[in-house]
Amino acid sequence: MPEISSRGLNMPPSPIRKLVPFADAAKKKGRTIYHLNIGQPDIETPQIALNAVKNNKLDYIAYSHSAGIESYRKKLAEYYHRYNIDVDHNEILVTTGGSEAIIFAFLSCLDPGMEVIVPEPFYANYNGFAVMAGIKIRPITSVIETGFALPPVENFEKLITGKTGAILINNPNNPTGYMYSRKELEKLRDIIKKHDLYLFADEVYKEFCYDGEEFVSTMHLKGIEQNVVVMDSISKRYSACGVRIGALITKNKDVINTALKFAQARLSPPTYGQICGEAAVETPQDYFDGVMTEYVERRNLVVDSLNKLPGVICPRPKGAFYVAAKLPIDDSDQFCKWLLEEFEYQNQTVMLAPMGGFYSTPGLGKNEVRIGYVLNVEALKKAMKCLEEALKTYPGKTN
Amino acid sequence: MPEISSRGLNMPPSPIRKLVPFADAAKKKGRTIYHLNIGQPDIETPQIALNAVKNNKLDYIAYSHSAGIESYRKKLAEYYHRYNIDVDHNEILVTTGGSEAIIFAFLSCLDPGMEVIVPEPFYANYNGFAVMAGIKIRPITSVIETGFALPPVENFEKLITGKTGAILINNPNNPTGYMYSRKELEKLRDIIKKHDLYLFADEVYKEFCYDGEEFVSTMHLKGIEQNVVVMDSISKRYSACGVRIGALITKNKDVINTALKFAQARLSPPTYGQICGEAAVETPQDYFDGVMTEYVERRNLVVDSLNKLPGVICPRPKGAFYVAAKLPIDDSDQFCKWLLEEFEYQNQTVMLAPMGGFYSTPGLGKNEVRIGYVLNVEALKKAMKCLEEALKTYPGKTN
Repeated sequence: MPEISSRGLNMPPSPIRKLVPFADAAKKKGRTIYHLNIGQPDIETPQIALNAVKNNKLDYIAYSHSAGIESYRKKLAEYYHRYNIDVDHNEILVTTGGSEAIIFAFLSCLDPGMEVIVPEPFYANYNGFAVMAGIKIRPITSVIETGFALPPVENFEKLITGKTGAILINNPNNPTGYMYSRKELEKLRDIIKKHDLYLFADEVYKEFCYDGEEFVSTMHLKGIEQNVVVMDSISKRYSACGVRIGALITKNKDVINTALKFAQARLSPPTYGQICGEAAVETPQDYFDGVMTEYVERRNLVVDSLNKLPGVICPRPKGAFYVAAKLPIDDSDQFCKWLLEEFEYQNQTVMLAPMGGFYSTPGLGKNEVRIGYVLNVEALKKAMKCLEEALKTYPGKTN
Repeated sequence: MPEISSRGLNMPPSPIRKLVPFADAAKKKGRTIYHLNIGQPDIETPQIALNAVKNNKLDYIAYSHSAGIESYRKKLAEYYHRYNIDVDHNEILVTTGGSEAIIFAFLSCLDPGMEVIVPEPFYANYNGFAVMAGIKIRPITSVIETGFALPPVENFEKLITGKTGAILINNPNNPTGYMYSRKELEKLRDIIKKHDLYLFADEVYKEFCYDGEEFVSTMHLKGIEQNVVVMDSISKRYSACGVRIGALITKNKDVINTALKFAQARLSPPTYGQICGEAAVETPQDYFDGVMTEYVERRNLVVDSLNKLPGVICPRPKGAFYVAAKLPIDDSDQFCKWLLEEFEYQNQTVMLAPMGGFYSTPGLGKNEVRIGYVLNVEALKKAMKCLEEALKTYPGKTN
């Protein structure tokens, strides 16, 4: 029997999926599980987007342009203009989800063996994309005590070597919800400029900014226009994760032309998803207003509930729909497993994501969890009550 | 400005796309172009598949299982059973087009630097996927004089070294239309078994077999069940290229579990496409009967027309919807460009794919073209007339 490749063996399993068998077992026992472990919002996709697919008149589903349907790219350019992001449709490549935008950026800009500096904790699938592209992630630790603010510039400088090709940020951040300020982004810009690195920016949560905080895109930063590559997705924006439509955006013509060659090899992004995405650009503002109101209420409920619990620390982030919380426990892997295997409160329990998998430095995040506020307020209240009860009885509690 | 990666620079441009600017210029002159250069059929997608998408009742488009929607995989297993391919749904991973199945197979089974032996001419995008995965394609030449039959076993043996990880075949073949016989496949099986290699089989054209010829899948071969990885797609089968749904199928649990890790990183294949694909499994037989009748008529028209022309050789292939033809010309790149730039017959011309790009060995295919019979009979007749006239006046003709 032939062997599996070493990159196949090195592919990290998803930090969430290893809990799935325990969740399945709990479900079999008839237990209600509040799924706060995922990034799949329960919000409805805008009607205008759903209807565009339902009402499509295609007789056969042809390949689109490899860079995406031109009319969609033109609509997307209009959409970015609303954010004062100055791009035209030739600077946009429609991808199969944000995932493919990340892979194309890695493949186009970095050679195997090169390194990307990423503030940790970070979206765990970056590890998988790094393995696929044969590159290395060098983590730079941000800490819960500062709410996961940008680590000091000196820490970046220490990691930069001849192998460094890029810095990758996710803003607003999954798993922490942290949103970088203009000042922080300008510090990053200075490092990028000084060392002439790529700045990869995963900005898929830019619609999810709270408390009147202004979202600053890396494409707003002056002087590094040729260095910035933005990865976007419509998954979160329109609650349309399954359509698999994202985008790679850059002013750098060499990068977009190179990414296009990778895009041509895989022929085209999904046609139905593009129809959905193109219509979604016209989603009325009241849709987003409703979503924002809902998420702020959810966030406040979760953060307030958590901070009331003894020994729990939970910053109140300004973006995305996650919070990171430090719990008075020995090991969040064990705790999250225990929640599914052993615990129940009125035949209910809660599924959380242990934070260890979001750190690259071994041992970090051991007493932290990520909580996605992707359920309605009533469900979240019950989930928080479960967590409160669980922390009273968990055998590995530390306070 | 930071540099482009060397793999980005090495990414081969599509052999077809370099002609696109000339086609655009011809269109601007008001010229009718018969596009025989592409693999995008003009056949309608089955109504049952189109309607499933139109009538979907989803309120929000969630991620599916990373391996694909379970009910779809179960349907797919039923579909393969009709071909006496013995798989269950856990041996099927739904991918984003056949393209992703190829990439996942390369990444899961081969380390960077390893080699895959591929009979040439072959589907040109294999080159791109090889660059993405950092592997090398070692071509083994098949020739038009034998109708592109499997090259002698000795030729394979000569190429096999410690670096060889797999043999990749495309059956029925793009660009030649050639379909391997059971005897040829058994020869391949013996090589695979002897050297314990992977056998990657791109079987996306298996619905397109003519003249009563039996399609033999690599999954029918006894004794190499753990070596075979099939890449499939619904693009051609249901004329649904744009839905981007394919599949990786293997009895090898290590391979499917490894591919699943890559699949989890990109979250899920497109939901709408899976809805389309699941419904398409129930496409009535008369749809395929109609398609087969149509394609046989088209193939015969093209092959007969070509063989009537002085100095042209065109085998009559038994599969897919392409023919490869040897023309009495100096250089097919030049000829195909000339057809668009200089030639016209009653204000019409024809766009063909030069075969050079489908060979890996430099210099081969120089007087060959690929013709996709993806237009209706009336259009094909006009296109063949154009080609006849063109061969009379082309300055680089050799007879």
